[in-house]
Formats: sequence, structure tokens, C-alpha cells
Amino acid sequence: MKIVGTVAAMRGVSAGARRDGKRIGFVPTMGALHAGHCSLLRIARQAADFVAASIFVNPAQFGPDEDYTRYPSDAARDLALCRGEGVDCLFMPAVAEMYAPDRSVAVEETALSAGLCGAFRPGHFRGVLTVVAKLFNIVQPDVAVFGQKDAQQARLVQRMVRDLDFPVRVVIAPTVREPDGLAMSSRNAYLGPAERKRAACLSRSLRLAAKLHAAGERDTAAILGRMRESIAKGEPPVTIEYVAAVDWETLAPVARVERPTLFALAVRVGPARLIDNALVGGVTPEGRPPCRPTIPCHGDTTED
Amino acid sequence: MKIVGTVAAMRGVSAGARRDGKRIGFVPTMGALHAGHCSLLRIARQAADFVAASIFVNPAQFGPDEDYTRYPSDAARDLALCRGEGVDCLFMPAVAEMYAPDRSVAVEETALSAGLCGAFRPGHFRGVLTVVAKLFNIVQPDVAVFGQKDAQQARLVQRMVRDLDFPVRVVIAPTVREPDGLAMSSRNAYLGPAERKRAACLSRSLRLAAKLHAAGERDTAAILGRMRESIAKGEPPVTIEYVAAVDWETLAPVARVERPTLFALAVRVGPARLIDNALVGGVTPEGRPPCRPTIPCHGDTTED
Repeated sequence: MKIVGTVAAMRGVSAGARRDGKRIGFVPTMGALHAGHCSLLRIARQAADFVAASIFVNPAQFGPDEDYTRYPSDAARDLALCRGEGVDCLFMPAVAEMYAPDRSVAVEETALSAGLCGAFRPGHFRGVLTVVAKLFNIVQPDVAVFGQKDAQQARLVQRMVRDLDFPVRVVIAPTVREPDGLAMSSRNAYLGPAERKRAACLSRSLRLAAKLHAAGERDTAAILGRMRESIAKGEPPVTIEYVAAVDWETLAPVARVERPTLFALAVRVGPARLIDNALVGGVTPEGRPPCRPTIPCHGDTTED
Repeated sequence: MKIVGTVAAMRGVSAGARRDGKRIGFVPTMGALHAGHCSLLRIARQAADFVAASIFVNPAQFGPDEDYTRYPSDAARDLALCRGEGVDCLFMPAVAEMYAPDRSVAVEETALSAGLCGAFRPGHFRGVLTVVAKLFNIVQPDVAVFGQKDAQQARLVQRMVRDLDFPVRVVIAPTVREPDGLAMSSRNAYLGPAERKRAACLSRSLRLAAKLHAAGERDTAAILGRMRESIAKGEPPVTIEYVAAVDWETLAPVARVERPTLFALAVRVGPARLIDNALVGGVTPEGRPPCRPTIPCHGDTTED
């Protein structure tokens, strides 16, 4: 596995792979890798001949009161996981390599980013789209893989690719979950043991939504009300930031489940802000009802 | 010369050129081509093995009260000029091919775009950068050539390439001028005979700025005052939108010419809004004092 830290070196590696006629698959990450990332890397491997990953904790996507300075990090473990998954090149730039002090250009989205997390994290998706545009231009992948756990992010990247004509196919991969349903997330590391148990309320409420839909319920207000009740049961109570039902294409709120509908929520459990979602009312390659497989990572011996 | 109208076809042509080991040079235009564009195409030809040009009158960069609906157009002549200059592929997409009805992603710049034309044309440079990002992603050139006549646009594209890491070298080509100094522009077609003569006041004022600088004047307020006087002499008077002296790198106003300084102005002459500029106080490959060469276009027999 090649490990590169500069834009020029990464471009050189990509150019070499392309010269060899290889299709490049790409998984951008912020490190603190877990089984969810391993799943993305395997999907990239299936779709491409050369797999590039990046580890870059992107300051531009964190708000001033958010967890940029304490974001989990374990470089040695990340490297072992990437090696175990057969990553061909790992791009680990420093912040100064990615951002000029006088940077003044950003990618803005004004529709899909308005609701859900976008309403609570001003500037977050501008930071995400800007760094993804940069990474796409540096790595120049044929295929990039994003996890459905961050569904709004993934849909925004697809929208950016469409509207700015990036020559990249964006695959949205199913969320990988812990045995009790908790979606894999680097931020799960913030949870103490009691909080970790309470955190199962997110996926539990999504399974309830899927069950209600399967039983014929189409009214999203009714389903969202039941989800809120279910989440409120825990003790001490967690703080709901939002629970919403939105159209998968537009991410606009819907009153009835008539097309593929994303049930999404953000909940604060102790020090952690956790998000999760489930796609209901339509089967697409990118979305499935919540499931619980835990993919063991190659080279990974810990269980977190 | 291949003429393509779809994103997919243009991508295919570029991919073929790249497979053949060719470097791609690119000149984006809005059509109504003139000797200035011919100069850009020749510079692209020198820098690359395969020259692509685009003709797309981009609605996103026109304000509601601007000249989108009456922008000059002469497709037959444009094709003849491109053939004459040896263009390998001409991309002429329809508006619907470039923009989805629900498009929601744009490229925003917040520093270099604040002054000069950016202050008078809100949203203009957002539209320019967004379409240039799209064209870069569609054509995937190694080199793109922009004219210094639109200096703020050219600097903004360079800034976008830097900040979003586009793998493209942006060359800024010298302004091509009519014998009396008027910068070549598609919008010169708006000028009647008397207005055409008055329009020489722009380049005349820039030659005055260069002359004052050569004589030792460094105070930009003094130079700008003399430029304004010079422009005000015409009868009937033209309307000055701005006359400014800005740093070439940052496009921020400067009080003294101590580094390469762009003297730039926008003037309304009858129905036409005309812009021009001169780089003073530093010699760079991209900028020279105003000069008057007119490059005859291959295949061009008219003189406009």
C-alpha cells in the first residue's frame, strides 16, 4: 500500500493507475475507521481495479462548537485496516496541503442541504462538498463509495456530481450495524457503556417505522409520532434533534409514503450527536430497510 | 472538426484523445467569435496536441436585466473560424443538456469576486465559475486558455483551480485589440459607428495609466483621476461604471503601484457595457501593457 501526503504525489499515483488501464475506486474518510468503512472499501474493490482511500479530518465541515479538535483518531489501526482491505493507495494530506490560508472558493448546495442535518449544522455541507470536490479532482476516481448512514451527505454528493458533471459514479452502500442495531460510526467512541445501550434507540425507532409501513401505515406524521414515543422511552431521556420523513430524491418532507422515503433522525446521547436513517417504501440498489450485519474487518482484532 | 452537443459525446471524444496520449487544450467561449478567440485557440494549439472549444451562451452568468436574450450569435461564422484555427472538437450543448431544471449546486467565490465587475453584476461570477467547473469536468482538459480582457474572470478561474484542485493549467492570454486600441469583444457588435469611435476611450485611458506609471507616478488615486478626466472628455459623455486599481493577485484595491497592479474599468457606451484593463508595474507572462496587435483569423474575411 502506497501512503502519500501531497496532492502532487496522489495525482501521480492516480495517473499511473490510469495509464495501466485501471479503473479507480475511491473511499474518502475522516479516519477512525470501523467495519462500515471496511464495507465501503470492499464495494470499491468490487467496482474498480485500483482502490484509493483518503484519511482527512476536514476542518471546513465542522462548526465552531463541534468536535473537530477531539474527533477520534487511531492512525496505526487505520493503516492496518486499509492494508487488510487491500487498499492500493492511502492519501493522508495535512490541512495545509489541502487549504491555502486565503482560500475563497467553495461548493454550495441550496436545496437538498436545507433540511435534516443541514438545518442544524450551518456550513457543514458546504465544507463536505468542497472537500469532496477537491478529493475528486485530486484522486480522479471512476467510482466513489459513500455510506448510507450519512444519507444526506451521500445524496448531496450525487447531486453535486450531477450538477457539476464530475466524471465519477457515486455508489451509496448499506449501513453496517452493531449486533443491537446501532449504526457503525466513529463517533460511537464518545459513548460510555450506559449511553452505548441507550444509543440503540435510533435504529429501534427506524425498525418501528419500517414495521408500521409494512403493516400499511402511510401517514408520515403517525409514523414519526410513534418513532418519537419509542425514543422518549429511554431513561435518562436522550435529546432528539430531528426525526423526519423526506423524499429520497429531493430530501423534502413528505406527508405520505408514496415514493421511496427516507426516515432520518439525529439524537444527542450524552456527548455524542448520532444520526441514522432507513429508506422505506421502495427498494433501490442504494437503500434497504435497516439490517444488522456486522462485517468483521481484515486486520481488525478489536470490537468497537 | 468533430461537433458534439451532448456531455456523453464530449466525454467520449476527450477519453479517445487521452487514450491516444494527447494533451487536451480547451477554450470555452460564448460564440460570436472574433480575433481574440482566435488568439486563444492558437495558444491552446501551442500548449496541447488536441484542441477543444465550447460555444455555450451560459444563462447562469447573466443578470435578469442583462443581454442574455440578445447576445450576439453567428454559428456559421463561428464554425468557419474554429475550422480555420484547426479546432479538433467543438462542444455546443443546449441549455437543457447543461442544466437540470432542479439544479441546486454552484461554485461560489468570496474574495476576488467582491469588487470590479462582481460588485455590479451580482451572481455573475457564480454563474461563470459553475459553468467553467462543469466544462472542465466534461472536457477534462490539461490546459485551458482565457483572455486577459476578462481579467477578473481569468483570475477567478485560476483561484477556483487552485482551491478546488482541478487538474488544469489556466493560461491567461494577452488582450487582442482593434487598430485604435479597442479590446476585441463580442459586445462591440452593439456599437453604432459614433459609439464605436467613443469606445476607444477605454484603451486610451489605460495607455495614459501606463504612461503615467512609466513617468514615475505611483499614486493610484492620481492615475485613476487622470483616467477619469480622459474618459470624460468624449462628447456625448460615456457612463463610467468603475475605474479601479487593484492588486493582480488579490484583486483588492491598492493605493500605490508597488506590485503588479491591474488598472481596470467598465464603461457604458450607448447600449454596450464594455470592460478593459491593463497590468502595470510588473511583467508577468500573463499580462503586458496595452498593445494593439490585431490577429487576423483564418477563414475570417470580415473585419468586426
